[in-house]
Amino acid sequence: MPKQKIPVQAIPRLSLYYRVLLGYKTSEFIRSSELARLTGFSAAVVRRDLAYFGQFGIPGRGYNIAQLKESILKILGIDTEWKIALVGVGNLGSALISYKGFTKHGFKIVCGFDVNPSKLNKKKADVPIKHMRDLAKYVREKAIKIAIIAVPALNCQEAVDKLVKAGVRGILNFAPFRPKAPAGIEVLNVDLSIELEKLAYFLNQAKQK
Amino acid sequence: MPKQKIPVQAIPRLSLYYRVLLGYKTSEFIRSSELARLTGFSAAVVRRDLAYFGQFGIPGRGYNIAQLKESILKILGIDTEWKIALVGVGNLGSALISYKGFTKHGFKIVCGFDVNPSKLNKKKADVPIKHMRDLAKYVREKAIKIAIIAVPALNCQEAVDKLVKAGVRGILNFAPFRPKAPAGIEVLNVDLSIELEKLAYFLNQAKQK
Repeated sequence: MPKQKIPVQAIPRLSLYYRVLLGYKTSEFIRSSELARLTGFSAAVVRRDLAYFGQFGIPGRGYNIAQLKESILKILGIDTEWKIALVGVGNLGSALISYKGFTKHGFKIVCGFDVNPSKLNKKKADVPIKHMRDLAKYVREKAIKIAIIAVPALNCQEAVDKLVKAGVRGILNFAPFRPKAPAGIEVLNVDLSIELEKLAYFLNQAKQK
Repeated sequence: MPKQKIPVQAIPRLSLYYRVLLGYKTSEFIRSSELARLTGFSAAVVRRDLAYFGQFGIPGRGYNIAQLKESILKILGIDTEWKIALVGVGNLGSALISYKGFTKHGFKIVCGFDVNPSKLNKKKADVPIKHMRDLAKYVREKAIKIAIIAVPALNCQEAVDKLVKAGVRGILNFAPFRPKAPAGIEVLNVDLSIELEKLAYFLNQAKQK
């Protein structure tokens, strides 16, 4: 479907367009200017992003919402449900298991893994918690390709190694550590303090005005 | 110090440069190509970012690390410690209180607020937990300008309103809800599923090759 390779920077924008479109009826049309207003991007950026899908906007009416949603879903690869393994069921892991945003967007944490005996063989929000030693077998059997890491920095590399060995291809890492992974494995490191630094920058700018 | 306005998109890159520089002695020099390699950005992007601070690279040697760190700290506004108020001390809030990455980068959660009686008048990782009704007084007295929201979607707008009224200017929002805030107040919404969508996109692309 995409006429040309979509730059990686556009992907979070497509995610946001999709969130906006969820609020519309599929029979409706939307103009790029409206989508720009609702997401905060410039109309030029939105038009360029949508042009990656080919020319299916109708002059004077805008874009068919059903078609636009389907295209974005396909490009993002979220037209099917992704099963996710979670490593580390401490405070953060528990928060992620209960995070409504994941299931809403096609991501389902199907199992949590930990080594703390007090957490094992229980369920959290209907998700079973298993011992790390069962990870390889489980991930292979369920053909899980995406994992979330929420362990302390010290245990992060070991978790990555185990996941990759079991066939995981994409990892969202919350540990404050940048693990090494073989080529072809995508690791996204979430550094929450970077978001705070953006805020500090904004406040600093405002002060100087 | 900055010779021209730094675009907002450059801010997370500056944060990453700073993290890389922390691993170096301040007496050392670093070339933009090295900084590019370590952060994954292109050398051209790194050079352009550093040029915002003025021309203080030395041809053939690179940039003085002490000077570079100081400039980035100032621009990001993290040359002083920021006090943070946390609203919502559930699983996610508790995880954020213990998150080592914040203090390491100059952000200190000084108080948590909740309404759940089982959480009040206790400390979590040395941070006191107070009732929401004490928020306004506390935030004003301590002149807190940044807050983190980790409450359910339903309680998000109310939390924003209270924080803004008490003088908070920047909010990092983890609730799956996009709250309204007056002009001049920065709200950054953290949507964790967008990160997963990036991963799904990468895996989809790899499959198609």
